[in-house]
Amino acid sequence: MTMTDHPTLPLVDPLDRAAINAALVRWGTRAKPAGSLGQLEDLAVRLAGISGTCPPPVVERPSVVVFAADHGVVAEGASAWPAEITGLMVHAMAGEAAAINAFAATVGAEVLLVDVGVAADLGHLPGVRHRKVRAGTANLAHGPAMTVDQARTALAVGIEVADELIAAGTDCLVAGDMGIGNTTPSAALIGALAGSPADAVTGTGAGLPADQLPHKTALVAAAMERSEAIEDPLVLLAEVGGLEIAAMAGLYLGAASAGIPFIIDGVIAASAACVAEALVPGTAARGIAGHLSTEPAAVVALKHLGLDPLLDLELRLGEGTGACLAIPLLQAAARALRDMADLPAA
Amino acid sequence: MTMTDHPTLPLVDPLDRAAINAALVRWGTRAKPAGSLGQLEDLAVRLAGISGTCPPPVVERPSVVVFAADHGVVAEGASAWPAEITGLMVHAMAGEAAAINAFAATVGAEVLLVDVGVAADLGHLPGVRHRKVRAGTANLAHGPAMTVDQARTALAVGIEVADELIAAGTDCLVAGDMGIGNTTPSAALIGALAGSPADAVTGTGAGLPADQLPHKTALVAAAMERSEAIEDPLVLLAEVGGLEIAAMAGLYLGAASAGIPFIIDGVIAASAACVAEALVPGTAARGIAGHLSTEPAAVVALKHLGLDPLLDLELRLGEGTGACLAIPLLQAAARALRDMADLPAA
Repeated sequence: MTMTDHPTLPLVDPLDRAAINAALVRWGTRAKPAGSLGQLEDLAVRLAGISGTCPPPVVERPSVVVFAADHGVVAEGASAWPAEITGLMVHAMAGEAAAINAFAATVGAEVLLVDVGVAADLGHLPGVRHRKVRAGTANLAHGPAMTVDQARTALAVGIEVADELIAAGTDCLVAGDMGIGNTTPSAALIGALAGSPADAVTGTGAGLPADQLPHKTALVAAAMERSEAIEDPLVLLAEVGGLEIAAMAGLYLGAASAGIPFIIDGVIAASAACVAEALVPGTAARGIAGHLSTEPAAVVALKHLGLDPLLDLELRLGEGTGACLAIPLLQAAARALRDMADLPAA
Repeated sequence: MTMTDHPTLPLVDPLDRAAINAALVRWGTRAKPAGSLGQLEDLAVRLAGISGTCPPPVVERPSVVVFAADHGVVAEGASAWPAEITGLMVHAMAGEAAAINAFAATVGAEVLLVDVGVAADLGHLPGVRHRKVRAGTANLAHGPAMTVDQARTALAVGIEVADELIAAGTDCLVAGDMGIGNTTPSAALIGALAGSPADAVTGTGAGLPADQLPHKTALVAAAMERSEAIEDPLVLLAEVGGLEIAAMAGLYLGAASAGIPFIIDGVIAASAACVAEALVPGTAARGIAGHLSTEPAAVVALKHLGLDPLLDLELRLGEGTGACLAIPLLQAAARALRDMADLPAA
């Protein structure tokens, strides 16, 4: 895919080779058997490359931004849940009564809620950033989910939130999603961007009965077929994507541009990361795959992005939950590289 | 195996079925798709069974106890490292410059160091509990690693430390190990207790060259053959075990008896958990497998104990590092079960 004209997209630098090399050398002289911290050694090296310093800074002020939006494709029976759940869950999150609130509190992360496209009117619900681009997408089974301008606007919301949080001191970003029906656009995006067929990227999402999977797969296949000729990832995002997915991609671009790590959650987040990478190549190299969702498209997307997940706990909730749980792993890896003594002289 | 006469062993209750059932019911009505928190749902259910309450308490004051000891079998070339490293690493830990210090600080756990059998004289090194039972075990290739009285004394050190920490408010225990050469006794213990052959439980530990693995396997096989007739797990521990392994088993018994969770680290910890389970059946059901070490005996031991590991990060350092990283997962699981809202009425 190639990009046509998106003057608002931020620049993303390649990873810092000097910092990466310094981190590799530094691990080699720490007081432990070579390689004995496994994936955490690779993680600290990545963090050095992202920050451009060795040892990389230890994350102190992580933030989770949950973007919420609805999906017209729910009318096709693509989800086990009614669309009304999206708004109700935003209420639950605002009341600190969702899983992401419990997980974020555990790891010391702040949670920001952003309505980029919930169908219900959330009024002036406190604790929510009201940036609704439209009240849910159109039904992608019958035409574009949104206009290209709307996709660009939702993307810009994500970039803007990242910029604002980073300016205020956030040093690690997690994008979470809340949007009934959003595994369908995610599957279509991942299928299109990774070049994988519909039946390899479509799963039962948040509890679709197995006998309805062929119908959902057909929806994804039709969306992918319609988008085959699309070259521009922003146009693809508008055609078969979602408003929260666009905003999540924007958040990643903002983090990558600023040189702070972002942690990718499950399949929705992975689709947003694929979009971000297509828009600005090099973005994914600055992302950390927090966990492996049970949705099949998650595996496809992470492979496409060249990322290995840290956790594999059979999570499939979204909201940023799996990514949030990976925050202590980033902290532990960077802290060990910074604080461990040299090998003792025996 | 059966136990003969160990009057000092604590009692361990079976898991609380009522609390387990209450936790299962409570998950079923939380605001999320059924099962979407995967292994964390099972984890919170286990924690309810361990504590006897639903929702189970959220861990607030975790402690890591690193038991250090040396191993006579190092004289046989069983390790890639000289025995002197054990004492040097205790110094590094006392100076907060080891991996376990970085990880514990990350997750808010305190670290207590206990010398139960380091060969070197650690003098009055501050920050270390000096409870040396003997200055390293005898060479288990030539006879018993220690006397049964010494094994009992080391076990009692672990029980006593657990009791003391729990009385002071610790609500979750991790046992860590520091002992050059300790994958050899661990492999022998796991092989004997799980009924697995030497070549299935022997690995390269902390960096043994692959061409020396057959020699190490032969050491383990000989130790297992010699211990085949042993019925009493305490006698087995004395014959082919280690002082830090005995103390770790004691720590688990103390935690299990008091109704707080303990988190099992890598292969050394898993061998201690097998010993604890053999001494007091039901102990392992109160343990959480923090991670999957790359050592082959870790898989064998966890299968024998019926435990699924939470993390799989290719760690093989010991010290309690992998278990420590699992603490936030316990906290997140219990907190979600406690704080999440009921399913919204759609």
